[in-house]
Amino acid sequence: MMNPTAVDTHFESRIRTSFAQQGLMQAIGAALSKVAPGEVHIEMPFGAGLTQQHGFIHAGIVTAIVDTACGYAANSLMPPNSEVLTVEYKVNFLSPASGEKLVAIGKAIKSGNTLTVCAGEVWAHVNGGKKIVAVMQATMMAVKK
Amino acid sequence: MMNPTAVDTHFESRIRTSFAQQGLMQAIGAALSKVAPGEVHIEMPFGAGLTQQHGFIHAGIVTAIVDTACGYAANSLMPPNSEVLTVEYKVNFLSPASGEKLVAIGKAIKSGNTLTVCAGEVWAHVNGGKKIVAVMQATMMAVKK
Amino acid sequence: MMNPTAVDTHFESRIRTSFAQQGLMQAIGAALSKVAPGEVHIEMPFGAGLTQQHGFIHAGIVTAIVDTACGYAANSLMPPNSEVLTVEYKVNFLSPASGEKLVAIGKAIKSGNTLTVCAGEVWAHVNGGKKIVAVMQATMMAVKK
Amino acid sequence: MMNPTAVDTHFESRIRTSFAQQGLMQAIGAALSKVAPGEVHIEMPFGAGLTQQHGFIHAGIVTAIVDTACGYAANSLMPPNSEVLTVEYKVNFLSPASGEKLVAIGKAIKSGNTLTVCAGEVWAHVNGGKKIVAVMQATMMAVKK
Repeated sequence: MMNPTAVDTHFESRIRTSFAQQGLMQAIGAALSKVAPGEVHIEMPFGAGLTQQHGFIHAGIVTAIVDTACGYAANSLMPPNSEVLTVEYKVNFLSPASGEKLVAIGKAIKSGNTLTVCAGEVWAHVNGGKKIVAVMQATMMAVKK
Repeated sequence: MMNPTAVDTHFESRIRTSFAQQGLMQAIGAALSKVAPGEVHIEMPFGAGLTQQHGFIHAGIVTAIVDTACGYAANSLMPPNSEVLTVEYKVNFLSPASGEKLVAIGKAIKSGNTLTVCAGEVWAHVNGGKKIVAVMQATMMAVKK
Repeated sequence: MMNPTAVDTHFESRIRTSFAQQGLMQAIGAALSKVAPGEVHIEMPFGAGLTQQHGFIHAGIVTAIVDTACGYAANSLMPPNSEVLTVEYKVNFLSPASGEKLVAIGKAIKSGNTLTVCAGEVWAHVNGGKKIVAVMQATMMAVKK
Repeated sequence: MMNPTAVDTHFESRIRTSFAQQGLMQAIGAALSKVAPGEVHIEMPFGAGLTQQHGFIHAGIVTAIVDTACGYAANSLMPPNSEVLTVEYKVNFLSPASGEKLVAIGKAIKSGNTLTVCAGEVWAHVNGGKKIVAVMQATMMAVKK
């Protein structure tokens, strides 16, 4: 979507309040690093308690941050008092999730009254560089509070 | 798959050893409750630090346990010294993940030399009953240790 | 879903009328072989004009029949005057689509007011036997006529 | 992927030869409109025999052209004598497939020895403008001829 507009001018505080209520995001040390209309970024540091059997961040945690980024990217374009539910997502894993931190980027690519389709990416930042870890294609649903 | 056979007779110890190395599975209190050829179950109790903004278990954690169950279901049919990587998965969410515990069921539905396709389900157990929370369709890849 | 019930007693004629309007289903010789509440089957003969580069039925055609079967499986449980749209689907290909005919089976696994989640399979019938060709996980949406 | 390089300098003739063998692509009037390293475009005119029940191009045909575009985008980066198989794909439908022609764009986003992950889009061209119809996320596999 080119330059989407938020119909709720308070979308950012709405999203930040909701994010703060997510026990998992707090538990893994994740933070919102960008909240714009149709685009939300989430960062998290590498955490030893979040690994799979090879010591990389578990696919479920990689998914958790990009799902959250996509969900709020969709939510940013919804009317006031809208909440967002994940209908479904698909994730391809492109390289192991290792490094100093992960950054998840969620973007709304088509926003409708009920459903919003999002695209997400997760990047691992390592030694000043970055590599792509995963890509997501997701469907989000607006629900009234 | 009807009655798949494990070519590695030590598949169960291999899987239990690998599972024990997963920091995330330990952190969320998950346990292997069934390890059979082509089918693996994982259970976890409801945990307050694992929630999204409405107090349900986060989609990423639901995904983590069913991804792990599917991965080991695939791994159970692989030759000795094989490890498993998640290529990709798709998850549909059918009802909120609330209740006393979640049970993830992973099954191999087509096992090949390189790739194995799996189907997964997550059930929430509540007050003696259960409801389906999510379904997964996934591709797993064998890699030599 | 265990024994789903159709709220529209005329669901079968509704589905058969809609199916007859699908130019593609006619062009490829596909036919409805079962129309039950929450479950629809579609059969098609092998066709030389439907192949990919190795002479197997093209993935897009395999997808077309199982998408249609899943869509009508969802539609069978919707109220009168409901039409169905495909929101999204995911397909894994398990073996080449060759043989005398293909049979697609679509089932509703969770039916809601707006969205229905379906599971689909495509089987190739060859020399009196059959093999599984593809599995689908899909989201369908009810729309008022 | 930024500026991927084709290791097989004959990738274009290889792809054009393979495309010409696809019965379905011929039957629907599809043509290769771009064949570059890691990116392939396919165009097709609107066809009355390709519709679903509302007169739009069937989801399966939309899928067929973007699957083919993604498959050859992956194939363009593979070694000589490589063929490509579709492992799986996921498609979200964003608007009805109507208009004068459809253009499918397939891009390789991560190319490995065995598997290549691709992203695809389908655009409908109508009255000099265009709208996005569908997005795909797919996994392709290299096989030796």
